[in-house]
Amino acid sequence: MRRTYLDHNATTPVDPEVAEKMSWFLRDHFGNPSSLYPIGRRVKELMNEARERVAGALGVDRGEIYFTGSGTESDNLAVFGTVEAASGKDEFVTSAIEHPAVIEAGKALEARGGKVTYLPVDERGTVSLDHLRSALTPKTALVSIMHANNEIGTIQPVAEIVRIAHERGIPVHTDAVQTFGKIDVDARKLGVDLLTVSAHKIYGPKGVGALYIRRGTTICPFLRGGRQERGLRAGTENTVGIIGFGEAVRIMEEKGRKERARIEHLAETLKKGVEERIPAARFNGHPTERVKGTLNFAFPGLEAEAILLALATKEIYVSTGSACSEESEEVSHVLRAIGLRPEIARSAIRMSLGRSNTEEDVAVVLRELPEIIKKLRSISAFHPEG
Amino acid sequence: MRRTYLDHNATTPVDPEVAEKMSWFLRDHFGNPSSLYPIGRRVKELMNEARERVAGALGVDRGEIYFTGSGTESDNLAVFGTVEAASGKDEFVTSAIEHPAVIEAGKALEARGGKVTYLPVDERGTVSLDHLRSALTPKTALVSIMHANNEIGTIQPVAEIVRIAHERGIPVHTDAVQTFGKIDVDARKLGVDLLTVSAHKIYGPKGVGALYIRRGTTICPFLRGGRQERGLRAGTENTVGIIGFGEAVRIMEEKGRKERARIEHLAETLKKGVEERIPAARFNGHPTERVKGTLNFAFPGLEAEAILLALATKEIYVSTGSACSEESEEVSHVLRAIGLRPEIARSAIRMSLGRSNTEEDVAVVLRELPEIIKKLRSISAFHPEG
Repeated sequence: MRRTYLDHNATTPVDPEVAEKMSWFLRDHFGNPSSLYPIGRRVKELMNEARERVAGALGVDRGEIYFTGSGTESDNLAVFGTVEAASGKDEFVTSAIEHPAVIEAGKALEARGGKVTYLPVDERGTVSLDHLRSALTPKTALVSIMHANNEIGTIQPVAEIVRIAHERGIPVHTDAVQTFGKIDVDARKLGVDLLTVSAHKIYGPKGVGALYIRRGTTICPFLRGGRQERGLRAGTENTVGIIGFGEAVRIMEEKGRKERARIEHLAETLKKGVEERIPAARFNGHPTERVKGTLNFAFPGLEAEAILLALATKEIYVSTGSACSEESEEVSHVLRAIGLRPEIARSAIRMSLGRSNTEEDVAVVLRELPEIIKKLRSISAFHPEG
Repeated sequence: MRRTYLDHNATTPVDPEVAEKMSWFLRDHFGNPSSLYPIGRRVKELMNEARERVAGALGVDRGEIYFTGSGTESDNLAVFGTVEAASGKDEFVTSAIEHPAVIEAGKALEARGGKVTYLPVDERGTVSLDHLRSALTPKTALVSIMHANNEIGTIQPVAEIVRIAHERGIPVHTDAVQTFGKIDVDARKLGVDLLTVSAHKIYGPKGVGALYIRRGTTICPFLRGGRQERGLRAGTENTVGIIGFGEAVRIMEEKGRKERARIEHLAETLKKGVEERIPAARFNGHPTERVKGTLNFAFPGLEAEAILLALATKEIYVSTGSACSEESEEVSHVLRAIGLRPEIARSAIRMSLGRSNTEEDVAVVLRELPEIIKKLRSISAFHPEG
């Protein structure tokens, strides 16, 4: 059976050219980039080429890019590192729909005595700027608002958030893991001080992320030890992962807007198709300010996991909420924050499109999904739609 | 020219079989291990096979192994995680010759108001058990003493340290990055509660480490976010690195003691040869309780960096101290702790042998090193040995 992969927000297939480059690197580039002799220096050069590529894609300088082990680590470094460096300031402002890497960092700060505000969002998932303004105080060390949400795709008004925070001298971090490669991510235009990206969401390997840190930003290291990454991130670098990340960015830049437009078109077709064929489906997310390839639908009366498993028997892979909390029993904090009742939130699946998708994939889903929903409804004890 | 690599303590060449396995994995195993459907489940299974291998090599259960992004991260998780979990206890006891990942974690704890004791060592690099006893208090949250030192190879009496600490109910962590694969590392026999290992020191990839956490140990996560690694280490896993780690352990177990004995024999030959040919060379480390492949020699009157660069022109690669602090200007804290004066410490190079070495390598060094030392002496302004 043909595989229909619709979970690109969870992770993306490694591009064959990325895999090839990593395999090439693994064969003879084992040097430690901290070593002073040629074997190490060569690896450092290759790492810096990758750094240059990531920097170029974000419109910043190479010296402002720090490699980490994941998007999560980049987020943790941004949050813990800036709050620790802002001596005397112990307040952190974020949103209720952030990735767990930011939410849980916030909870840790609270446990250590800090004050954290989780800004509410409206029913489309947008953070309110008025709430932001009233949350900021002279003790606010950092604002962290994601560029786009991983579950529903809503794009936040980051540039405006930055303007408001900067007026008060407060630095801003944004998690751009779900926008990098999908919409323009220009760190200078956004105006942020810190920005997170990750390789495995752009057809690169897992285990490598990066944090853009605007020159002049005050920050402490998170991982402590050796002086790697100019003293800001200790630990021998995931060199092969970094080389893969660089290659993934190169390919992303090469394929560019044309590929993005193709994916957005597929997603629009899929969205319309679902809405036409399953009138009871409830779309979650912003109608326009959204990463277009992210489609979140609730199917009231059903359990998302049942839908997911039924689709998997047809080799159609989607997710319930985010992969990072896939194994937990909890209801999505994002869907709760946009006002969905728990039983509705529990009925929602996310289809996230990417480079691997074709028109055929959309046709497959539009053929199978309505059948599955119909069948599940017929065996479901509770089906308000009749 | 033939390459003579004598910096295995900094990093090791990736075993061709490891590289091949990683390349195979990269080609078709992109699933997110947190995903509920088969693509993700398959990756999780492969990760658990790797986990099983690491556990087997350490003599522990699979459920006690947690993958991280580096030895440094494992050390940080062990130190920060146990101290944070030991509410009310804010004292940390370690040694003066630990890896920077532990020393710097200690400094961070001090900056946050905790009390840290850095136990002194004798001139052979051994921690004094009497000093340990007097450092422990009812407020001690953790003892962390490395299994063997990365610069001089001295093996610590970890089992005795554990006995002393456990009598007082204090958990013990050991950084076994420099012993794993070189001597027996049986976590149960050592009795430790936490133990760090790293893949790239055993011919695996960079960017992946593991922490053994004995079942029942109280610990908080360090990286915060998703519920990966049973809630203890957030962030999408470096899946390809973990698969490479498992393969590296498999090969290590297969080659076993025979390969270790060969390397130890080569190192002994090299040590004796240097001592015979360069009488002024000063050996640093323990005569018997030492990882035999680690040879640290000071050449009083010379600068280590000059020796390193001269050797590099002959494609002989050694290091000055540890790769993790290679780029810093400071004198080795390890060599200072065993009582070397700064100018002597600055003259020391480390030769660390491994699987890639042959008798020919030893012959090359024994031919070139004496020549280089002689030449550098003749051009050095200060040469007490004449």
